[in-house]
Amino acid sequence: MTEMLSARALAADIRSGRLTPLDVAERCAAAIAAREAEVGAFAALDLDGLRREAAAPGLGQTALAGLPVGIKDVLDTVDFPTRRGSPIFADHRPASDATVVRMVRRAGGLVPGKTETTELAFLEPARTRNPRDLTHTPGGSSAGSAAAVAAGMLPLALGTQTGGSVIRPASFCGVAGFKPSFKLIPTTGIKAFSWSLDTIGLFAAGVEDLAFAMGAITGRDFALAEEPGTPRIAVVDTVEGASASDAAHAALAEAARALAAAGLPVAAFTLPEAVQAANAAHALVQDFEAFLALADEWDRHRDQLSDLLRHHLGGAAAITPERYDEARRTARRARHALADSFAGFDAILTFSAPGIAPEGLATTGLSSFNRMWTLLGSPCVNVPGLTGEKGLPIGVQIVGRFGRDRAALETARLLERALS
Amino acid sequence: MTEMLSARALAADIRSGRLTPLDVAERCAAAIAAREAEVGAFAALDLDGLRREAAAPGLGQTALAGLPVGIKDVLDTVDFPTRRGSPIFADHRPASDATVVRMVRRAGGLVPGKTETTELAFLEPARTRNPRDLTHTPGGSSAGSAAAVAAGMLPLALGTQTGGSVIRPASFCGVAGFKPSFKLIPTTGIKAFSWSLDTIGLFAAGVEDLAFAMGAITGRDFALAEEPGTPRIAVVDTVEGASASDAAHAALAEAARALAAAGLPVAAFTLPEAVQAANAAHALVQDFEAFLALADEWDRHRDQLSDLLRHHLGGAAAITPERYDEARRTARRARHALADSFAGFDAILTFSAPGIAPEGLATTGLSSFNRMWTLLGSPCVNVPGLTGEKGLPIGVQIVGRFGRDRAALETARLLERALS
Repeated sequence: MTEMLSARALAADIRSGRLTPLDVAERCAAAIAAREAEVGAFAALDLDGLRREAAAPGLGQTALAGLPVGIKDVLDTVDFPTRRGSPIFADHRPASDATVVRMVRRAGGLVPGKTETTELAFLEPARTRNPRDLTHTPGGSSAGSAAAVAAGMLPLALGTQTGGSVIRPASFCGVAGFKPSFKLIPTTGIKAFSWSLDTIGLFAAGVEDLAFAMGAITGRDFALAEEPGTPRIAVVDTVEGASASDAAHAALAEAARALAAAGLPVAAFTLPEAVQAANAAHALVQDFEAFLALADEWDRHRDQLSDLLRHHLGGAAAITPERYDEARRTARRARHALADSFAGFDAILTFSAPGIAPEGLATTGLSSFNRMWTLLGSPCVNVPGLTGEKGLPIGVQIVGRFGRDRAALETARLLERALS
Repeated sequence: MTEMLSARALAADIRSGRLTPLDVAERCAAAIAAREAEVGAFAALDLDGLRREAAAPGLGQTALAGLPVGIKDVLDTVDFPTRRGSPIFADHRPASDATVVRMVRRAGGLVPGKTETTELAFLEPARTRNPRDLTHTPGGSSAGSAAAVAAGMLPLALGTQTGGSVIRPASFCGVAGFKPSFKLIPTTGIKAFSWSLDTIGLFAAGVEDLAFAMGAITGRDFALAEEPGTPRIAVVDTVEGASASDAAHAALAEAARALAAAGLPVAAFTLPEAVQAANAAHALVQDFEAFLALADEWDRHRDQLSDLLRHHLGGAAAITPERYDEARRTARRARHALADSFAGFDAILTFSAPGIAPEGLATTGLSSFNRMWTLLGSPCVNVPGLTGEKGLPIGVQIVGRFGRDRAALETARLLERALS
């Protein structure tokens, strides 16, 4: 196992002159030489280009200090093909970079290549393997981004989450993952699956690395307070809780104990029914929109869709605007009810995934503990550090109040420290 | 002046067998032959393709009955170049149709071509001239769509509005225009200018034609009630009211008199300050997002931007995330305040534009009476029928309650009838 690369530590070393952006590029290149053949995290890669860009003068003093950032292949890039995990786009080369790709570059980040995605960010697996155990899935849809960071091939990578596509692979691969509040990072230039849900997120070695990158990319204040007070933690076992493995339950309990031992008020909390209702509403919103967002692929390239996606969209075609509207109303009520619930606590601690990464590459696992939060727009952090069967990672999830992304990361860092 | 084509009447004639889709295509082709050389509404056009498609069996029984629908050139089309009014995209051919283009086709609409847009849907004028008087601007940014419908070259055309890009050109060209509630029509596949504001809308000969097309394209119930009750009308003279011409004030007064004469309760209403605040917030939201949505064009093709847009984006670069967030909070408060105000009335009657279309093609006119409603997400209808100097059209605007799009169109139809 190659060691993971801390974006924050590398940037500090670059700024202080101990390292250059080119040194970091070479470190990534070495890890890629060691692991990429077996992991398969990249859909496109240009290490010579990375080295050339890393040599640019002044790069080390930028916000991202010339660190390489992997870009999930559903995000448009001019410099790389953008295949979106689909044969329909085998030869596709966008005319413009996605906004977030430009934000990375404006912040002084480098783009070494594109990371593998499941087909159009849905469920048909990518070729990527889990760097923690190659016989297990890395999860999806942001498979390559999670795997590249876990394997120490990159310090940072962008993913997207519509159901559970950031938090789930982060949990399976044992990396820190962040799905920000809805709309915090613009989605212009994403291949849309569901415009109400598609959210751009981030993978990194640890929580501080996520905060560092969020601050650099968005230009917002993500400096984590050294003494963030004592947030009150609600331990939430959702309606899906019964589907979590014993190991997942043990991890959640251990995380709760660690937070309590660190002096934080921790208490079990049952989400109001109005919030739980968002769980079932998610599929209606997602699928109604997917049948429209992927209208061109359905209408003109149906034979090039996987059986899985074709079957799913075929079902989605039957959702009426009335049912969609009702699901959106359910979501709005759930958002208000969750905001009310937050009067009693500051952060939620819950499962990131139902267990360790499933064996084999046939599925990418379930988004049971993610999709509700995606619909609610809440900031979610996967905190790594715990393990289950075979010593494979099981993450736990901190869910924060909508729009309070820094506070969510501060609580996640408290947990990360409590677990280490 | 060629007569305008009523989409609803043509579809009825096709269904009853009095006309075929090919007859309608030929009628459009004849009007295009007569007017396009002087008007310049089309960025791309394929009349032979239109004729071929119009001959498809069964087309007449679809929701749109095979009617041709013009597509503003900021919407992606596979079958036509998508130049977005910018030399940057001179050779651009998207890989997928925009969702709304697919919705039009799924409804049995035909796409004869792309309509001219101002540069990237901002203010640098298109080459299009106003069919009512070629020495005047048709307005913008949806210049070609408004002009094509006004000149009788098409029964329907799609536009987009981020500030005043549907209602203003509809007013200047004397056609019915509709900006639906935010998100009613998905924007996947639009060239984004501001993702919080970009709204897809529609041009047609009259209000019933708008409702017919909205129902066909969205699959929602837009059948206008023959007896829609007696909506209470609030006549609103916004903070910008002083900038409206005498003719615009006269048109607004005449519309109010006509509604009152038709038996509707009509009363002046002053918008609460919390709503008026949205007027100034619009520019902050739009411009902060434009600097991100057009990041690729700014970073890599700045020399191919017009002076106007380059200067504007240069100013936008200075807007901080904090000021943007504050503007969004102002917008949210304004939406709530407007919803509260609607307790006292059912629809707002206000200016569509400051006056008749300005002379010359150097500017596309002002969005003073549109941008606030775009930020508030309200459904807006331009009702034609009145005129100002030189007999040129001045529209008036019906603004409805968010999400009550059909009701807004019902009120607009009452006004249209009262004026005729």
